[in-house]
Amino acid sequence: AHRRFEALHREQAWDGDPERFGAAAAVLAGDLCLAWSAEVLATATGALPAARREAGRRVYDRMCTQLMGGQYLDVLTQARPAGTPEQSVERARRVIRFKTVHYTVEHPLHLGARLAGGPDELVTALSFYAAAVGEAFQLRDDVLGVFGDPQVTGKPSGDDLREGKRTVLLALAHRSATPSQREVLDTLVGSPGLDPDGISRLREIITTTGALAEVETMIDQLADQAHDSARSAPLVHPAGDMLADLVGTATRRVA
Amino acid sequence: AHRRFEALHREQAWDGDPERFGAAAAVLAGDLCLAWSAEVLATATGALPAARREAGRRVYDRMCTQLMGGQYLDVLTQARPAGTPEQSVERARRVIRFKTVHYTVEHPLHLGARLAGGPDELVTALSFYAAAVGEAFQLRDDVLGVFGDPQVTGKPSGDDLREGKRTVLLALAHRSATPSQREVLDTLVGSPGLDPDGISRLREIITTTGALAEVETMIDQLADQAHDSARSAPLVHPAGDMLADLVGTATRRVA
Repeated sequence: AHRRFEALHREQAWDGDPERFGAAAAVLAGDLCLAWSAEVLATATGALPAARREAGRRVYDRMCTQLMGGQYLDVLTQARPAGTPEQSVERARRVIRFKTVHYTVEHPLHLGARLAGGPDELVTALSFYAAAVGEAFQLRDDVLGVFGDPQVTGKPSGDDLREGKRTVLLALAHRSATPSQREVLDTLVGSPGLDPDGISRLREIITTTGALAEVETMIDQLADQAHDSARSAPLVHPAGDMLADLVGTATRRVA
Repeated sequence: AHRRFEALHREQAWDGDPERFGAAAAVLAGDLCLAWSAEVLATATGALPAARREAGRRVYDRMCTQLMGGQYLDVLTQARPAGTPEQSVERARRVIRFKTVHYTVEHPLHLGARLAGGPDELVTALSFYAAAVGEAFQLRDDVLGVFGDPQVTGKPSGDDLREGKRTVLLALAHRSATPSQREVLDTLVGSPGLDPDGISRLREIITTTGALAEVETMIDQLADQAHDSARSAPLVHPAGDMLADLVGTATRRVA
């Protein structure tokens, strides 16, 4: 959105800085969507019994608070020194929990469950499912951010590497790197001018250190857990099958 | 908020651009407050009859949408060419209606009225009051933005002039300026390096063109209208007196 508003500013040759205009307009568009989402929830659930509406609203409120916290945690993790590889892995996984697990998977499932009058046991089971599939999904996204085909992912090649995104994949590569590999990682990761040659070198390090294989193993294990959770959750048929199928979609190698 | 987060980033010597970190963190803090305000409204009104809660929520939703629209209108008005002085005055007044009148005065009053089960006639009367006191308040704020004492207003001297804020006051000065005065306005208003001498010259032009007196007259007339509206609104004693008193607070010469 900010790029579109920035382009509009340039086309019209308006006063001031196009980039600032784009950012301001995009923030407002985002705020509008945030406000509208609450309005849509309130109006769409108007016909439900008050207790269910209220339970749904509580999930929604918690989701909003955790979303902002998770986004800030992401920004903060990006800014703070990387720390030891163990700290990096732990911090990257914490960001995944708050950003991806809670916001993208767990709360939307809880919202539906609560609006449908689902019991606490179901909500708990959905949390187990969400923790596993959410982390697996994010780890797959991190792998695609380094190895993915831009034609398929829609993101420029090596984008995460250029941005210096603090992922589990990179933290693991750092941990197992030789001193000379570590030097290459420190120099090239997060470098705005990273070129295709640099991306190839980084990909090779991430592969030869075993980091890629380690993350693939984590994804497989988490996908299995998610499958099991979906199958054993006290869900009405065919909801369990649908959640199990979703695991495949969320973690497949080519997005 | 963005300055505080920016300073934190600098103090800690974190990675990346302190200014971008500050902006990102402040946007998230704002979003958190936006989400919390809806949550506070929903939980604080939990004990009210459903119809009143619902009527209050509808006001709140409209307020959020109009706030974002008003803010965007402000950003847009700032960016677009000033147009003729008549267009400038009209656009500045439109921004006032959306940003200050609706958001700062009218919707908060409607919210209280609806939560208290107030009738449509009261809501209409409060709109008349809000339109007058809201515009008067903003015009006073614009005058203080040019002539105010930084010690009292808390804003740097001549801040609106440096920013090139498109106020009714400046549009009127432009309309009545001589060609040489207009040249000074065009050169100095919105100039980031505007110094105390430049501020003095602009203040003199705004005064000698009669723009200041014209705005003071508008404020007086609007304050009178607001007073009358407060007195004649179907309000329970002493609510009418309180709203009438608020007119003085909102429009007094030294803020």
